[in-house]
Amino acid sequence: MDLLSKISIVLVEPSHPGNIGAAARAMKTMGLSQLTLVQPKSFPAAQANQRAAGGEDLLRSATVVPSLDHALAAKTLVFGTSVRSREVNWPTFTPREAASESLGHLQDHAQAQVAILFGREDRGLENSELDRCSAQICIPANPDYSSLNLGSAVQILAYELRQTLLSAQPVVEETSTANQIQARQRPATQAEREGHLQHLEAVLNDMDFAHNKNSPLLMRKLTRLYNKAQLSIEEVQILRGILTAIEQRSVRS
Amino acid sequence: MDLLSKISIVLVEPSHPGNIGAAARAMKTMGLSQLTLVQPKSFPAAQANQRAAGGEDLLRSATVVPSLDHALAAKTLVFGTSVRSREVNWPTFTPREAASESLGHLQDHAQAQVAILFGREDRGLENSELDRCSAQICIPANPDYSSLNLGSAVQILAYELRQTLLSAQPVVEETSTANQIQARQRPATQAEREGHLQHLEAVLNDMDFAHNKNSPLLMRKLTRLYNKAQLSIEEVQILRGILTAIEQRSVRS
Repeated sequence: MDLLSKISIVLVEPSHPGNIGAAARAMKTMGLSQLTLVQPKSFPAAQANQRAAGGEDLLRSATVVPSLDHALAAKTLVFGTSVRSREVNWPTFTPREAASESLGHLQDHAQAQVAILFGREDRGLENSELDRCSAQICIPANPDYSSLNLGSAVQILAYELRQTLLSAQPVVEETSTANQIQARQRPATQAEREGHLQHLEAVLNDMDFAHNKNSPLLMRKLTRLYNKAQLSIEEVQILRGILTAIEQRSVRS
Repeated sequence: MDLLSKISIVLVEPSHPGNIGAAARAMKTMGLSQLTLVQPKSFPAAQANQRAAGGEDLLRSATVVPSLDHALAAKTLVFGTSVRSREVNWPTFTPREAASESLGHLQDHAQAQVAILFGREDRGLENSELDRCSAQICIPANPDYSSLNLGSAVQILAYELRQTLLSAQPVVEETSTANQIQARQRPATQAEREGHLQHLEAVLNDMDFAHNKNSPLLMRKLTRLYNKAQLSIEEVQILRGILTAIEQRSVRS
């Protein structure tokens, strides 16, 4: 997750400290840690800490700067977020594309640093600020109501960054408890599933269930039903247990 | 965007009205409109309206119900969200996969209705609630701090639904033969699936099958098995036909 520590979320002139806290929490849930605030109206603030929940450490380590210049000086790739694509001829990425671009850039260049800018709650980024960006990120939204909360916008970008990073990594090792559960819940083999279906067919025949019915078609439907469920070995055992109970009841009575 | 109107966001016992408002706003920014609240602690509430910003109309039209049963009765596909994958071998989707599954399901079946459940702020969904779902949606999060805000979790799912819809191919026209087949194969509603499970439980009790077994756990496993299969109405009818045959055989003998 080291790459995520090279991506800064930059909030430009946020008005509401609650939104700064919400952004910090959103970042932390997705493993981001670098928060930069350009001329926040009110910070530090109790409301920011409150909304950050367990993400106060990001607020404590946040960098507060007097201008966008200070925030971007060391950055090698800068994106600006927007709900509508305001600049017709300006490169525009979806959040997913931007996440992929950012991580690719960081992987390719050891010294790289990425910044993603989020504008003011009421009017976003100014055009002169968007000009500082390599591209804009346009978050797809309802054209009738595109008023995305600042914390939510940060959440979507942070989520896409984590999701993109995860999908590029090898599978995590499993614990031994998980392995034990998985032993019971391993997918049944084809032979084990066939065994269950033959057992089921025998019980249905014994009950004369298929007497008035199209038996091969019925069995096909039941086969498909149970294949859809992708039975585990434990589930095959439960179902066969029920079938055996039905058989024993018939013999007994 | 009509498909989005067939997807309900269901908040189970939300504690903080502010989160209900944030969820409504998150939904509206992405074009979702159906909000259901199961036993909200405080609703309606001024704080909900405030956080909803321009999304108050979703709060006004929200359905408030006394139990999850009421929320799910008419649904044909139900997902439960979770930050960690709690059930090792339970079908687990990423938000993106779930969005794709949901929209595919709605495209395939004219009468389909999807519900996505979000649990309590402090402890999420109970296992018995997850059992009601065809699969869990696991939002990838920082293992050191996975405390995603409720509104943020809704935002991520709503965003993925919109993103998936925007990138989707146009729907293929259906033939009338296909429609006839689909009438039989439409997904069973939650109420129809519950009917089957209650029938199954009655038959098992009648056979004393659960005598030496942990009956609630057995029924949980069977519930999950059949929910995994996403039964059609025809399949429910076949399974209940078999159960009725078992019952009649017992009476006859």
